[in-house]
Amino acid sequence: MLTVNAYAATSATEPLAPTTIERREVGPRDVLIEIRYCGICHSDIHWVRGDWGPQTYPVVPGHEIAGIVTAVGPEVTKYAPGDRVGVGCMVDSCRECATCVKGEEQYCLRGNTLSYGAVGKDGALTQGGYSTHVVVDQDFVVRVPQGIDLDEAAPLLCAGATTYSPLKRWGAGPGRKVAVIGLGGLGHVAVKIAHAMGAEVTVLSQSLKKEDDGLRLGADHYRATSDPATFDQLANTFDLIINTVSGKLDLGAYMSLLALDGAFVTLGASSEPVISMPTSAVAAGRRVYTYSLIAGIRETQEMLDFCAEHGIGAEIEVIPADKINEAYERVLASDVRYRFVIDTSTLA
Amino acid sequence: MLTVNAYAATSATEPLAPTTIERREVGPRDVLIEIRYCGICHSDIHWVRGDWGPQTYPVVPGHEIAGIVTAVGPEVTKYAPGDRVGVGCMVDSCRECATCVKGEEQYCLRGNTLSYGAVGKDGALTQGGYSTHVVVDQDFVVRVPQGIDLDEAAPLLCAGATTYSPLKRWGAGPGRKVAVIGLGGLGHVAVKIAHAMGAEVTVLSQSLKKEDDGLRLGADHYRATSDPATFDQLANTFDLIINTVSGKLDLGAYMSLLALDGAFVTLGASSEPVISMPTSAVAAGRRVYTYSLIAGIRETQEMLDFCAEHGIGAEIEVIPADKINEAYERVLASDVRYRFVIDTSTLA
Repeated sequence: MLTVNAYAATSATEPLAPTTIERREVGPRDVLIEIRYCGICHSDIHWVRGDWGPQTYPVVPGHEIAGIVTAVGPEVTKYAPGDRVGVGCMVDSCRECATCVKGEEQYCLRGNTLSYGAVGKDGALTQGGYSTHVVVDQDFVVRVPQGIDLDEAAPLLCAGATTYSPLKRWGAGPGRKVAVIGLGGLGHVAVKIAHAMGAEVTVLSQSLKKEDDGLRLGADHYRATSDPATFDQLANTFDLIINTVSGKLDLGAYMSLLALDGAFVTLGASSEPVISMPTSAVAAGRRVYTYSLIAGIRETQEMLDFCAEHGIGAEIEVIPADKINEAYERVLASDVRYRFVIDTSTLA
Repeated sequence: MLTVNAYAATSATEPLAPTTIERREVGPRDVLIEIRYCGICHSDIHWVRGDWGPQTYPVVPGHEIAGIVTAVGPEVTKYAPGDRVGVGCMVDSCRECATCVKGEEQYCLRGNTLSYGAVGKDGALTQGGYSTHVVVDQDFVVRVPQGIDLDEAAPLLCAGATTYSPLKRWGAGPGRKVAVIGLGGLGHVAVKIAHAMGAEVTVLSQSLKKEDDGLRLGADHYRATSDPATFDQLANTFDLIINTVSGKLDLGAYMSLLALDGAFVTLGASSEPVISMPTSAVAAGRRVYTYSLIAGIRETQEMLDFCAEHGIGAEIEVIPADKINEAYERVLASDVRYRFVIDTSTLA
């Protein structure tokens, strides 16, 4: 076992604090990664605070991990010490079910193993990337190409994968009009990727507060959803709407913005247990309502390669570990442009 | 003006009765069709009885029209007297909006002109196919290929178009598992077409009462939805579910039958003004919820050509006009296998 430094939540209500955790010995197919940076995803906060159900503490959150390989098991073929790598939301899956076989491990029918807060095949609770090192099976490690700095790469492991996958699946590209609801951690990456894919990108945000940023990041248009005229003027416009907002939306109003065959895709975990909308909002224009959850490992690698090719990294604010609790409060107050990334050398 | 025989509803509550109506003079781009057969669609009944709002009476229903061209206007290029033709749910549209330009006139953004109960560009109320003749712009007429009898072709103009379009759009074909909910007027045609496309077809019906028919029509499997085991055993199975049932369904239960990326498509007009389902039923497996309404003119022609090539016609019971009211009662009692078709020569 390896004892490593980490930052952990010890309950749903107390602040996160420095601790040490055990990492398993490097197995035959494992990669030992010295973590350099780990992004703070909004879901880390939901998780440690028990918003999604009771957790087993301590929890070390973090599933936007970028670092350097420092050791590999004897059967590892994909990576070698010194490689720049990343780990996202999953560290294992059954690898045998229909969806795993398709390379869509995020939909593993037997349940994949999340990077923290999950019980792995060895029976141990997984612990995430707010830590100096992690041991991961090589099949759940991806390569961070030259051309993306590790700190700007870290958030891509979740936010990049989560936005790239539906943009690609629903055909964002030249001649297509894509709207992104919300310009936050996910939204700002969605704008960059959709723009790089060649789509005409509109940000739909509560206000015009971040308009300058949105346009700088690649949006062609920026519209306030607090203005009812937005919904009138943009009716039947978009081929694709990427919803990065987890709270309740007036789905009927947003669906009405879709053109014929347009798709409305909600990302990640919704806070709403039931969705409902007027039948007419879907029926008119053969519109599609769907979800998308992160991405499979193969597509996560494809996303990183795409981002490297197009010079895309996340917009980040790097913080030392002792600012994690403050960062959580700022995330909850939407006071971050656009992702906090922990410099894990401050844990050493 | 041409005065022609027809069968009309004179109010929401009285039986339909013989009458005469006026058809417009054959204009430069018009086709005069001697109607031979007209199918009875369930929506005819909803319409004349005011289920979808108050109507202007008399209403001559009927949008599953098959007949023979008897005259054409001077600018008509597509048809000539003697041609076997059909008319479906639409007789006009704006022809200029984005969706009309795409050939998807059923989603005309300015509203297309339905074959009955709508006000056409000339300001007159359209009247449908329970009649001996109809005058239609050539662009909204399709050709009934040799190889389909006109009586079996008539229901295809609505039921065939409505089912072919989503089956094609969502990739029914070899290696794909398609479920059809409901074996009625739409469902039985969906089974035939999906089977001809090469898909593995399962009928999901309340009971096993029509199982023999379903298998004869091309289904590979027939399952009762009244048996809870059906939902357990078929979880994550289908690439496509075609819902031909207009009433309320437990959407969460049906969505759970979809495999990764599977699509649930409701056809036609739903009786439910709001749809709702558990978020998890969509989010799991990146499932798609959508609708599909009839088909554009180009695709309706494609459907007829496909049906002719594969020997597909509707399963019908031909009736004289004086049995229309009795047929309505039998449709409401689901006592028809699978479509009533009016022999319009009995109107003469």
